[in-house]
Amino acid sequence: MTDAFQNSQSQVILWLLEELDIEYNVNFFERITSGTQKNRAPPSLKETHPLGKSPQLITPEGRVIIERSAIAKYLINKYDTTGKFKINPTDSENDAIKEEELLSFGGNSLAPMIMIQMVFKYLTAGSPFFVRPLLGGIASMVNKAFLGKEIDSMMQWLEDGMKGKTYFMNTENPTLIDFMYMWYIDFALVISISDFSKYPNIKSWHDKCKDRDAWKRSLEKGNGYNMNIEM
Amino acid sequence: MTDAFQNSQSQVILWLLEELDIEYNVNFFERITSGTQKNRAPPSLKETHPLGKSPQLITPEGRVIIERSAIAKYLINKYDTTGKFKINPTDSENDAIKEEELLSFGGNSLAPMIMIQMVFKYLTAGSPFFVRPLLGGIASMVNKAFLGKEIDSMMQWLEDGMKGKTYFMNTENPTLIDFMYMWYIDFALVISISDFSKYPNIKSWHDKCKDRDAWKRSLEKGNGYNMNIEM
Repeated sequence: MTDAFQNSQSQVILWLLEELDIEYNVNFFERITSGTQKNRAPPSLKETHPLGKSPQLITPEGRVIIERSAIAKYLINKYDTTGKFKINPTDSENDAIKEEELLSFGGNSLAPMIMIQMVFKYLTAGSPFFVRPLLGGIASMVNKAFLGKEIDSMMQWLEDGMKGKTYFMNTENPTLIDFMYMWYIDFALVISISDFSKYPNIKSWHDKCKDRDAWKRSLEKGNGYNMNIEM
Repeated sequence: MTDAFQNSQSQVILWLLEELDIEYNVNFFERITSGTQKNRAPPSLKETHPLGKSPQLITPEGRVIIERSAIAKYLINKYDTTGKFKINPTDSENDAIKEEELLSFGGNSLAPMIMIQMVFKYLTAGSPFFVRPLLGGIASMVNKAFLGKEIDSMMQWLEDGMKGKTYFMNTENPTLIDFMYMWYIDFALVISISDFSKYPNIKSWHDKCKDRDAWKRSLEKGNGYNMNIEM
């Protein structure tokens, strides 16, 4: 795997910062480029947080926040004073419980399935040639019996829920869930989705997000949103 | 893997229902016990939600909520009228952002690492005898180089954050995070933690939770909280 996911989980935070149109500084940290720790986060990230993970948000008061959803919630609560990027408080269907349901679904149901699929692909590609067919066989079996169907059914549920909506919470502008799902859907596109046209509502949401000026500006300010995996 | 995790992710919802002391009905669904779909959720769960997953909460109004954190938030918001299981609104350190940070950390950072470790263990144990040493070797290598250290460092961060606290959000009673972490810590104990005494604060939190009357009652009402994995 080479340069995979370079800083990509942080990209959605840059997108949100651009949408909110606030001033910020980005400190770039390059992943380690060689040796046994190749592609891992550099030790310098530990200077600001013991876990040494990216992204980290350091507030003007010096508070260090980790985890994308916590960073996004902090930024929206603090800087979106007009409610432009918040859910509609009068929409009883797309309420805070629905928001939590989708937030958790992306991270705790969809992403783990894609991650296991990635581990199988990586294991197969990275193993010695004489066991590769065997591992490939196991991976393909697990995929057919379980993972593939599971991911299809999850994507279909998202697709059905998006019917008639521009953004996930039926708002005019993206909200927390859209910022978070940009990563999940791109992750699924790289690893799991062979035919994106099966999910036209999700595809049109994806196009709409990527067409936003703030997303484009965030790409220019980031250090590379590389979702290609070379194995 | 036999009877692993029988209904265990739902157990924490039963615990919360018992803490809230409200009336509820539990519909038990046994996992499929044989054939290619062994240990999967039964199709009957799809009658109430297209994803066919457990747990599902059906409210008196007929709304079906999935995802443990969404179910827990709904129940606490609706039924905890005295704030007994809510975070302290005057505690600026253990606030809603900290809550989101811990919630996301458990599901999006800690659990995926444990899950990958589980996949390796399962793959190794389930593979033909002539590749088992090779797969075991790969698993042990990945573990030494990456997974083991990563999980240690995550557990240590939780341990340090728990210093001087009874529950995660420094409250007198468990809150959302405690209900959610019961599963994450038990999952880690089964797969990843060889020496629980390395984390005395987390251990004492774990003991405290399991000693609560509501937890004990929930075990009696559930259909088996079996965290033993036979491979």
